[in-house]
Amino acid sequence: MPEVRIVLVEPKFEGNVGAVARSMANFDIAELYLVNPCEIGDDAYRRAKHGSDILEKAVTVNSLEEAVEGCFLVAGTSGIITKGDRNYTRLPIPVREFAQQMSGYIEKIALVFGREDYGLYQEELNKCDLFIHIPASEEYPVLNLSHAAALVMYEMFQIGHETRRAEPADRKEKELMFNFFDELLVSIDYPEHRKADTSVMFRRMMGRSIPTKYEYYTIMGIFGDASKIIKRGKKWE
Amino acid sequence: MPEVRIVLVEPKFEGNVGAVARSMANFDIAELYLVNPCEIGDDAYRRAKHGSDILEKAVTVNSLEEAVEGCFLVAGTSGIITKGDRNYTRLPIPVREFAQQMSGYIEKIALVFGREDYGLYQEELNKCDLFIHIPASEEYPVLNLSHAAALVMYEMFQIGHETRRAEPADRKEKELMFNFFDELLVSIDYPEHRKADTSVMFRRMMGRSIPTKYEYYTIMGIFGDASKIIKRGKKWE
Repeated sequence: MPEVRIVLVEPKFEGNVGAVARSMANFDIAELYLVNPCEIGDDAYRRAKHGSDILEKAVTVNSLEEAVEGCFLVAGTSGIITKGDRNYTRLPIPVREFAQQMSGYIEKIALVFGREDYGLYQEELNKCDLFIHIPASEEYPVLNLSHAAALVMYEMFQIGHETRRAEPADRKEKELMFNFFDELLVSIDYPEHRKADTSVMFRRMMGRSIPTKYEYYTIMGIFGDASKIIKRGKKWE
Repeated sequence: MPEVRIVLVEPKFEGNVGAVARSMANFDIAELYLVNPCEIGDDAYRRAKHGSDILEKAVTVNSLEEAVEGCFLVAGTSGIITKGDRNYTRLPIPVREFAQQMSGYIEKIALVFGREDYGLYQEELNKCDLFIHIPASEEYPVLNLSHAAALVMYEMFQIGHETRRAEPADRKEKELMFNFFDELLVSIDYPEHRKADTSVMFRRMMGRSIPTKYEYYTIMGIFGDASKIIKRGKKWE
């Protein structure tokens, strides 16, 4: 995953800047550049929460050129998709695809977000190497600045951050549990002609839910105990 | 894609409720239920923007049970992942995987978001069929409420909303352009022994960038014109 620098161009509301800093902390991104920003005061810090460090270290500059210095790739964003493909400066790459394309790089990239009202101007877009798009409603595709930034950062974060799953039960354990289930069917005098189907049905249900080792053992224990208790009761009948 | 109802449990800041309504408009989701919310005033409507309709039609109820009535599946969210897998009520499914699992359904599901400070209480989590998790920083995984909601809605929206790509050039058109490139090499007296390699290099570059029909025609026109002008100049030399 490349190093990421977030660049906000002329943000007008400090609350948004603070919210972006918080999202940066949420997705392990540290470098924030602000191009001619509004004043950054209490409201920004209040919204930044654990991202206040990032906000404090934010670099304020006067131009987009300064803000993207040292980045090998500059990616602009906007809620607007050009319908035709003649205006190539606005030919968008969906953000997920962009993130996947970036996964092989470790160099620094700049993710550039425009003003709350006008986004990025044409001359700013022309300075971007490419243009990221967040697929959204056709009727109202314009996201709040900090939400758009959070979505792009979220997609970048997913590269190489596969969630560790709880350890699933292995085949042997599963077969043991299926046996316990079948025993339970026997113990409750389940109709003989429906046994096979029901057994398969249970197997399918477990197949879809992919339970963890812990869940398997828990269920197996319940089935085993139930069978045992039923059998014991029968002996005493 | 299933119908989606957003449920906010005891939100404390009206700004967040407004921001959620805006994101709902961004991702074509209309139904908002509020369980014992804070007062919804000007700040909420200011932040809702084009989502103010959604905010106005929001249904206020007194309990989570009422809020999820009529939904076939109730999905809770939280920034907290349980490390072990014993507390099965907090066994999380990454939001992307959840969205993909839901893609085959059209029935209504409830996406439940907890309080800004405490999230969902254990008894509320117990009422959820499953638990969605947003992969984020280990150090600071707690997202702002409206950002978390936006991310989950974004993932739901991606189901069946593949972005239409600009029409790519077909093989014949591409070959024509490669011919024009080769002609250009000839016209500039490009070293014979490097021609083949450079030709392949250009082909590979185009292969990676998957240009549109328009881009192909534009580049082809430039190469064609350049060759022509160079040849004409040579004739007059």
